[in-house]
Amino acid sequence: MKEPIRVIQYGVGPIGAAMVRLMLEKPGLEIVGAVDVDPAKAGKDLGEVARAGRKLGVAVSAAAAPVLKAGGDIVVHTTSSYLVDVQEQLLECLDAGINVVSTTEELSYPFRKHPELSRLLDSRARERKVALLGTGVNPGFAMDKLALTLATVCHKVEAVEVRRVVNASKRRLPLQKKVGAGLTVEEFRAQVAAGILKHHGLPESAAMIADGLGLAVDRIEETIDPMVAEEKVVTEFLEVAAGRVAGVHQIARAFAGPKQLIFLELKMYVGAKESIDAVTIHGLPELNLAVNGGIHGDLATVAVTVNCIPEVVQARPGLRTSRDIPMCFFPGTT
Amino acid sequence: MKEPIRVIQYGVGPIGAAMVRLMLEKPGLEIVGAVDVDPAKAGKDLGEVARAGRKLGVAVSAAAAPVLKAGGDIVVHTTSSYLVDVQEQLLECLDAGINVVSTTEELSYPFRKHPELSRLLDSRARERKVALLGTGVNPGFAMDKLALTLATVCHKVEAVEVRRVVNASKRRLPLQKKVGAGLTVEEFRAQVAAGILKHHGLPESAAMIADGLGLAVDRIEETIDPMVAEEKVVTEFLEVAAGRVAGVHQIARAFAGPKQLIFLELKMYVGAKESIDAVTIHGLPELNLAVNGGIHGDLATVAVTVNCIPEVVQARPGLRTSRDIPMCFFPGTT
Repeated sequence: MKEPIRVIQYGVGPIGAAMVRLMLEKPGLEIVGAVDVDPAKAGKDLGEVARAGRKLGVAVSAAAAPVLKAGGDIVVHTTSSYLVDVQEQLLECLDAGINVVSTTEELSYPFRKHPELSRLLDSRARERKVALLGTGVNPGFAMDKLALTLATVCHKVEAVEVRRVVNASKRRLPLQKKVGAGLTVEEFRAQVAAGILKHHGLPESAAMIADGLGLAVDRIEETIDPMVAEEKVVTEFLEVAAGRVAGVHQIARAFAGPKQLIFLELKMYVGAKESIDAVTIHGLPELNLAVNGGIHGDLATVAVTVNCIPEVVQARPGLRTSRDIPMCFFPGTT
Repeated sequence: MKEPIRVIQYGVGPIGAAMVRLMLEKPGLEIVGAVDVDPAKAGKDLGEVARAGRKLGVAVSAAAAPVLKAGGDIVVHTTSSYLVDVQEQLLECLDAGINVVSTTEELSYPFRKHPELSRLLDSRARERKVALLGTGVNPGFAMDKLALTLATVCHKVEAVEVRRVVNASKRRLPLQKKVGAGLTVEEFRAQVAAGILKHHGLPESAAMIADGLGLAVDRIEETIDPMVAEEKVVTEFLEVAAGRVAGVHQIARAFAGPKQLIFLELKMYVGAKESIDAVTIHGLPELNLAVNGGIHGDLATVAVTVNCIPEVVQARPGLRTSRDIPMCFFPGTT
């Protein structure tokens, strides 16, 4: 029997809590610590905070230092979408000599937006001989890794299109609000302009595809528009009148000069008739892949992150991305 | 500019020749040697033998030893489907301290059928600090790696089905003959019984999926039946009368006790209306993936093998499989 992998959960919000519940089902993972800055959670048992149905004998700590000092093999980090917001948290984990897998979207492929910070994280991880990975379903899988994997069968790749449609109707209320469901178009535009309303990660996915497939991309553009309800949409949580916003319609385009090489389109809205993840590769041969029914966002982000734990623990030291590691289901080891 | 990866092509039949032609398009790969036992090829320029359209300044050698002694970073090995037939060839490459990527189907996941030989190859590769990988499109990608990759988004996996339909009508004559096109059903059955007629790799794919997803498989069964032409089929190369064999219909099933956990179905025949690669994962969530139009076999085997070269060169020493390495298109490095 192998030694279990000792995990520290950093951030026990809804996604972090779901990570904990999934990890409890995996033999071979042992949760040895938990961190959350929320004073309402500090000192409480992680099982209670994560609604795991039982006590885990692990107290949530408001401070990371003592938990990291006590040691572990990997930190599962779920605190923010923005890399600059979490850089100190990540560096502290690396300095403690602990591997990190994080859902920070901007960490999934940070080299274009944050080149200096990428170099710093990479060199720090190498110094400490640990690996750092940002992943999740999107970015991290559905709009990047899946296309890269499919391209393994290609002789040539000229251009890539990825389309993801997510029906937000059956998702939790925060997700429905996050995509702007129920807003007027003007409110939506104002929230986009204020940087409040946005799904993060499309430019990161485009950059990962460009570098992975050797596409000479010189710029990546992103647009965020509303999906407007054509008829009234009623979900468990809210109602969207016709003409109001049902969700987001985001597109990232990557170009080499005037030529578009990558097109990534995400529609995430309530009332979507059909969820789908589709990849088209133009090249030799032409390829069309579809996941009909789509890949569920919240479930999948939690799964991807937990399933990557064993690979991150044994990865080459440094800043890794979904592109670098073999991704697979982790059944747990005993 | 990085040092190029120095490649030795071992086996210059139709597939090996296609490997050479594709490698010539990849900056960062340099073909430094070639081996083929065929006396008709020995001494000739590899470019001529591989119909590359130009001389390459590399003579095909009937003996491996001098080529391996001259050195290289990786051998691209394309000589036989059977592991016992190629074990000496593989060991000789490993003993020379050279990494190997091979299309030998039985090498793709050899642990069940050849446990001792697997251990020998693994330990020899580790001793020499090189990696050895058996791969290709099937086994190696379409009926194993694709399913494993998709399962990354799962919380639980209970069972897996993979269906691959290949229209052999537009494939080369040897492939059409290999699947038995034109035979009577009796001839087909006799050739199956004699071990002549078979697509190799389904049990290997089933074993890779079982181990990768932690499915407690205790036995794998395989059946080979004819696809019988319902009406006359005419291809560029041959004609199949109604009632004659159009191709193979192979199924591998993996069980835990009485329960079927893995179902792999391959139909490769002339006159197939539609090629497709489809993966269904039963679990949480349920997933359905389809590559409509399918993944072209010959093209893809060559692509998968060449695209894996950089990963094999930097892989952990030992016997690796498609499961262990990140698979992606290799655009070439300059």
